[in-house]
Amino acid sequence: MLEKLKQEVYQANLELPQRGLIKYTWGNVSGFDEATQLFVIKPSGVDYDEMSPDDMVVCNLNCEVVEGNLNPSSDMPTHAVLYKSFEGIGSVVHTHSPWATVWAQAGMDVPAMGTTHADTFYGAVPCARFLTAEEVNSNYEYETGKLIVETFEDKNIKPNEVPAVLLQGHAPFVWAKDCAHAVMNAVVLEEVCKMNLFSKQLNQEAPALPQEILDKHYERKHGKNAYYGQN
Amino acid sequence: MLEKLKQEVYQANLELPQRGLIKYTWGNVSGFDEATQLFVIKPSGVDYDEMSPDDMVVCNLNCEVVEGNLNPSSDMPTHAVLYKSFEGIGSVVHTHSPWATVWAQAGMDVPAMGTTHADTFYGAVPCARFLTAEEVNSNYEYETGKLIVETFEDKNIKPNEVPAVLLQGHAPFVWAKDCAHAVMNAVVLEEVCKMNLFSKQLNQEAPALPQEILDKHYERKHGKNAYYGQN
Amino acid sequence: MLEKLKQEVYQANLELPQRGLIKYTWGNVSGFDEATQLFVIKPSGVDYDEMSPDDMVVCNLNCEVVEGNLNPSSDMPTHAVLYKSFEGIGSVVHTHSPWATVWAQAGMDVPAMGTTHADTFYGAVPCARFLTAEEVNSNYEYETGKLIVETFEDKNIKPNEVPAVLLQGHAPFVWAKDCAHAVMNAVVLEEVCKMNLFSKQLNQEAPALPQEILDKHYERKHGKNAYYGQN
Amino acid sequence: MLEKLKQEVYQANLELPQRGLIKYTWGNVSGFDEATQLFVIKPSGVDYDEMSPDDMVVCNLNCEVVEGNLNPSSDMPTHAVLYKSFEGIGSVVHTHSPWATVWAQAGMDVPAMGTTHADTFYGAVPCARFLTAEEVNSNYEYETGKLIVETFEDKNIKPNEVPAVLLQGHAPFVWAKDCAHAVMNAVVLEEVCKMNLFSKQLNQEAPALPQEILDKHYERKHGKNAYYGQN
Repeated sequence: MLEKLKQEVYQANLELPQRGLIKYTWGNVSGFDEATQLFVIKPSGVDYDEMSPDDMVVCNLNCEVVEGNLNPSSDMPTHAVLYKSFEGIGSVVHTHSPWATVWAQAGMDVPAMGTTHADTFYGAVPCARFLTAEEVNSNYEYETGKLIVETFEDKNIKPNEVPAVLLQGHAPFVWAKDCAHAVMNAVVLEEVCKMNLFSKQLNQEAPALPQEILDKHYERKHGKNAYYGQN
Repeated sequence: MLEKLKQEVYQANLELPQRGLIKYTWGNVSGFDEATQLFVIKPSGVDYDEMSPDDMVVCNLNCEVVEGNLNPSSDMPTHAVLYKSFEGIGSVVHTHSPWATVWAQAGMDVPAMGTTHADTFYGAVPCARFLTAEEVNSNYEYETGKLIVETFEDKNIKPNEVPAVLLQGHAPFVWAKDCAHAVMNAVVLEEVCKMNLFSKQLNQEAPALPQEILDKHYERKHGKNAYYGQN
Repeated sequence: MLEKLKQEVYQANLELPQRGLIKYTWGNVSGFDEATQLFVIKPSGVDYDEMSPDDMVVCNLNCEVVEGNLNPSSDMPTHAVLYKSFEGIGSVVHTHSPWATVWAQAGMDVPAMGTTHADTFYGAVPCARFLTAEEVNSNYEYETGKLIVETFEDKNIKPNEVPAVLLQGHAPFVWAKDCAHAVMNAVVLEEVCKMNLFSKQLNQEAPALPQEILDKHYERKHGKNAYYGQN
Repeated sequence: MLEKLKQEVYQANLELPQRGLIKYTWGNVSGFDEATQLFVIKPSGVDYDEMSPDDMVVCNLNCEVVEGNLNPSSDMPTHAVLYKSFEGIGSVVHTHSPWATVWAQAGMDVPAMGTTHADTFYGAVPCARFLTAEEVNSNYEYETGKLIVETFEDKNIKPNEVPAVLLQGHAPFVWAKDCAHAVMNAVVLEEVCKMNLFSKQLNQEAPALPQEILDKHYERKHGKNAYYGQN
């Protein structure tokens, strides 16, 4: 079942090390099928060299395995919560990409300092708080998903406008309408985290991007009258 | 038309990711034909793997498409303004190369701190101010070009002696007599931005290059009595 | 003798430059055979291109060469002490990987600041003090091993829970149950050292990972009820 | 003439970009023939793809071209002065490798902070002062060589024990008994410059390597009783 999506998810997982986002098996990509309300995710801890599209695991939004002989990624419940809560997203990516993780470990939101950021994220990428001991010890990965949703609600951020989050002391989760775009958003986040860190070191007073430039760049790619690309 | 130039522009665009200046489609190179006063530019948002020389778009200095089935790069009007205003340049490159973008986000000129800089740029590479809300909301990409020209006039910098600019909160534009040299200048700028950042961190009092060494290195490559290379 | 282990040790040594942990011959991997109480180690200063599995040197825990025509790595006695003192380890890796060496030169323990760390190291990776002049001038490499053991005893750290150490002014030693995991642990240490450095620069108050998250991540991979992977 | 040396010099020049020390043609390697007192050097500004061993230029210690159809590297006179002044060296390498250039631009000696340094350089790598206007305007490249020699004399450093120098505002020159070792020393310098920068950032009080460890590591590779490697 869902053979085409399995192929997409498999390819997107391979893209993570190719794009320098992960080493070994430190990441996972899933893809969601709107029609069946099922999602396909990478198996846990399997070497990429030995992995095939058939090894992808199919799960439902109750965090149950529907098809597959292997254990799904241990982060599977986080993915499930995001698909259940964030309308319209078709793929979730988790990595420990180093520059984004640097910001996560610092416990800081990533401000919109430039147009590279504004082309993808309409405002700062939030950093969610540490999970509490209680959350950690009940159902860790599920609570992680809930915390992400809570963070977007509390800060009044629209997940389709800012498709990424950092988890304090952990690393990023990123999403998009499909796998290729979710991986791309993870690359953008990584690049922005690297550049913003050094811009702040170079000039402690470096300002955030003025609102009108943020609007302009986000809108020319994602707005109603977008004119970037061939559409 | 302009088949040879299309080939050059195509190749130079491919060189951007190969040299680590861009990821995905975050950059564009154009080339100018003096005889026809037309320029050739990359189409907007097309994957490099799927792009061919025939996909390049031909435009005139009034920002009109003269030939081509695809939309030109959304930054096309910036290129047009530069060709119209900066005499003798034959190619313009725009990237979001990370170290140059770090300086752009910091809103700082790149000082001439070493001979790597002086071999290409005869003095500091200026950082143009943020565009105003009015400029952003009228004809953003055209106004970007005008701001670059204004910056060089205000600071009394000769665009053929300092063939690059940073736009605050955005990224660099770079130029040269032809596509290969424009890409090379973009590489030099990127390298210099990386090195200068860390030289300043290592020694806050690190001085600019003395004028006579700046002169010497610039002149031995670009002066009347240049003796670098085989000419 | 020990042909299979020689092959593993050979492959693991080749992996060091492939994973960006070393340049030239600045590292060494050994593997221990529990049954014979012998270990196999890379020869000293031999180019990787010219090295074959048969060039690996077999040594005993008294630092004597048992088989092999080449000199063993000059760090061989350090490996011997670790195999003698740290029960259950099957491989030792030494590199001068740059980010770990940065921390070693700073003389600082690497704190557990994120889950990337906690997935492998159950707490801070200690930095052992400089060797004394007396230690340096008696039997340097052997004393290095003894100092590592002393460091773990003094700080009451279990070597199987924190399978790595930094030597002040020198570089890391890392270990694991087998060669592939020892190289992986060296990669984790390198990545963590890079990220922690910049997290601290971004936020001087960046906290260590809360104990419950450290426990959770370490236990889900290495604990009795581990559920990461396919076992 | 000197065909074997031309081949070595050619190969060593190709190694510079392969090892990440240079971009484009921003570096040069030469090799010295003791018997004839001639040296072979890369031509100036020729693309590496188009260069062959036959393009190497033969010069004498008076800075005259003895054989070759191309202009030698514009830095040729610096190489000549080093061969004339530093007894026993067989190769000189010049690069603008970024981390070494960072220190050169900062105008700072590179202290011996770790054993990676001590394995190659017996003490700090000195940074020579800016050339004076007079030196720049008389015979720049020749004066550069003289300044390097003066620096080693003034600081009482033996060029065979510390085979590298930084030129303030410029970049490193490195040497060794042959081309392969000169390139290796340039790689060591680059790595050490990167690591020391960040060690100092991590711990402003990070100490230099104690003298006895510096002695030990330098001597075990280069001393009378060296025991590193297979000799």
